[in-house]
Amino acid sequence: MRNMEEKLQEYARLLIEVGLQVQKGQTVVISSPVECAHFARLCAGAAYDVGCREVVMNWHDDALGREKFLRADSGVFDEVPQWRRHFYNDYANSGAAYLSIAAEDPEHLKGVDPDRLVRSQRASGEALKDFYRQQMAGGFPWCIASIPIPSWACRVFPDVPVEEAMEKLWDAIFEAVRISGDGESVLRWQEHMDRLAQRKAKLNELHFKSLHYTNSLGTDLTVQLPEKHIWEAGNDVTRSGQSYIANMPTEELFTSPLRTGVNGVVYASMPLAHDGNIIDGFHFVVREGKIVEAHARQGEEFLQAAITVDEGASYFGEVALVPYDSPISNQKILYYNTLFDENAACHIAFGEAYPCLEGGLEMDKEQLKAHGLNDSITHVDFMIGTKDLSIVGTTWDGREIPIFTDGNFAI
Amino acid sequence: MRNMEEKLQEYARLLIEVGLQVQKGQTVVISSPVECAHFARLCAGAAYDVGCREVVMNWHDDALGREKFLRADSGVFDEVPQWRRHFYNDYANSGAAYLSIAAEDPEHLKGVDPDRLVRSQRASGEALKDFYRQQMAGGFPWCIASIPIPSWACRVFPDVPVEEAMEKLWDAIFEAVRISGDGESVLRWQEHMDRLAQRKAKLNELHFKSLHYTNSLGTDLTVQLPEKHIWEAGNDVTRSGQSYIANMPTEELFTSPLRTGVNGVVYASMPLAHDGNIIDGFHFVVREGKIVEAHARQGEEFLQAAITVDEGASYFGEVALVPYDSPISNQKILYYNTLFDENAACHIAFGEAYPCLEGGLEMDKEQLKAHGLNDSITHVDFMIGTKDLSIVGTTWDGREIPIFTDGNFAI
Repeated sequence: MRNMEEKLQEYARLLIEVGLQVQKGQTVVISSPVECAHFARLCAGAAYDVGCREVVMNWHDDALGREKFLRADSGVFDEVPQWRRHFYNDYANSGAAYLSIAAEDPEHLKGVDPDRLVRSQRASGEALKDFYRQQMAGGFPWCIASIPIPSWACRVFPDVPVEEAMEKLWDAIFEAVRISGDGESVLRWQEHMDRLAQRKAKLNELHFKSLHYTNSLGTDLTVQLPEKHIWEAGNDVTRSGQSYIANMPTEELFTSPLRTGVNGVVYASMPLAHDGNIIDGFHFVVREGKIVEAHARQGEEFLQAAITVDEGASYFGEVALVPYDSPISNQKILYYNTLFDENAACHIAFGEAYPCLEGGLEMDKEQLKAHGLNDSITHVDFMIGTKDLSIVGTTWDGREIPIFTDGNFAI
Repeated sequence: MRNMEEKLQEYARLLIEVGLQVQKGQTVVISSPVECAHFARLCAGAAYDVGCREVVMNWHDDALGREKFLRADSGVFDEVPQWRRHFYNDYANSGAAYLSIAAEDPEHLKGVDPDRLVRSQRASGEALKDFYRQQMAGGFPWCIASIPIPSWACRVFPDVPVEEAMEKLWDAIFEAVRISGDGESVLRWQEHMDRLAQRKAKLNELHFKSLHYTNSLGTDLTVQLPEKHIWEAGNDVTRSGQSYIANMPTEELFTSPLRTGVNGVVYASMPLAHDGNIIDGFHFVVREGKIVEAHARQGEEFLQAAITVDEGASYFGEVALVPYDSPISNQKILYYNTLFDENAACHIAFGEAYPCLEGGLEMDKEQLKAHGLNDSITHVDFMIGTKDLSIVGTTWDGREIPIFTDGNFAI
């Protein structure tokens, strides 16, 4: 157990010092399931170690969330109480650092009325818009990371006893976030960030006008990019200059598509765990940016709900490149958790666009729209990468350049 | 385990249906340590079973609370963020039902600067005054109950392994709250409430002007009562007529003393677990209602802090009668938790007075003061009952009547 405890402490320090780079005097908000209290305490300790002002906890519990969606009065889902508005918006507006410990049974909301989920999301989107705006526009550093909980581990490793499933999921996550207990994870992350930065520079230099995706699943999708788009990877920086890593792990290079410039058909290559439900075997037909058809073998009602949260939910907000041979992909584990699965495959997202534009962090909503970026209260990544994925880029000066061949980078 | 789970469910139902008498459509706020999540879920389920509108959780964690008091920026303790004001005051003003699951290591704040505790309490007292006012004045139903956590159980039963300590504390608590797993606890509580009501009627009929406490510890205290005082026990009723039981267990009969009518010396008969610290071997010298001397063998700095939170903290707000042979006293367990210990012995409280007056719920602060009741942001019970406690009452018509002889009721 000593070694396990050391790894946990190293992980907590990594999230606070590298993921968020918490500054002396900064408030830290930690969102955590109550089941993850021990690890949340370690993260809080690491935040106090670097001199944070205060750690504020935002606890939640899947089981109670499920009870609420199943049994609360229907009116509840259209409301966001004043205290919750202040909790989210006030800390966001003051530039607090946000750590989110993501751990859930991917099907904890199975059987819930999708209408309640959508209304709840709409109400939050409206009430917490300062929070979401600041999150997207570099108003505060944030980092999402995961630890196992039994209900999730048993979904990932259904054929072994729960203790073994937990152990296997811990091992997989530690590997994915480069923790080995030797205290060298910070160094490994710096090297990793440098590698991603080199690839990012290369893509930005090529300056693509559009990407053409094809594979044997049936995907045949063209994605135009805004003229001033930039590729991002790994590190983000707040408007006030604080570096952070929004997702740990992160293997992706990503940018924003042109809102009305997406056309064709795109097939998901993995199940999507979204809002407590699993959506599987799905594809979209897309015309001039808008999803005009959505079909799923499993969970179609939740897919339909997800793309109708608002107008922008049926348009795209992100394209991301991840090689089929990425370290997480090579684990050959289906995590049913986007934080990991999106780093095992190329993916795109419907909903809100990150401001991946030159000078984007300084632009307001209207300016971002004018540059062709999508606006929504939602943002849902889904995986489209396969072993035979081909992506051909067309540059603004008319050259066709293979970006991905047989699932991996060709440049 | 089946029997244990049945007892837990019966306990949860008891708290929701008898403790709070949750109404259809009423919001329920549950305060719970994260360690007690399983039981909190059962309580939430019981609340939805009776058709509550929504269950809102107020999670907390002693370990993180301790970290904050030890390591957060000093300025934090003078502030109450807007979200917390709304969280407490808004639900209180709307008449939500409050369940508080009290479970803590009685020394979890050992070593913390008492000044931080006092400043924090002052800030909360000011910011959450709607909440406290409504709580004292029947604005909403509330119920405090407990379940074991390991750190607490090991303090109560220090000589046995933690599993055994947990089991023993569960047994003791189930006995104290009349849960045996037979589903008859509601009936037993009704009988218990009836017995308390009979004794209450008797005390009110006698209409005492003052009480004189003496015992071999050195207590020699006279407590005058307001002319319109009434004794209360067991059930409370909100202004809107909803019955509730503020503490489970409850064995006490209590009323409010005259603010300036307390004189003499009073010795604590048990240690007091207050604000995460243990105060032991203490006594007060009281003159015209005010504590003019406070001495403790252990934790004197926390005792001094507690009585200086505000002006009213050094005056008294409650006198309560509990026989030395009460069921909880006969367990011969020192719980280090006032919810239980106060039901094992006569006690008094410094700080805020409950409005135990004829028509008291309809009176405002000024009217209550005019009737001689104390006003404070704090209210701290401490135990004074012993095996040889004598209480002699003097009635308004001048008769001297023994109320307690040798620690038990004489009437």
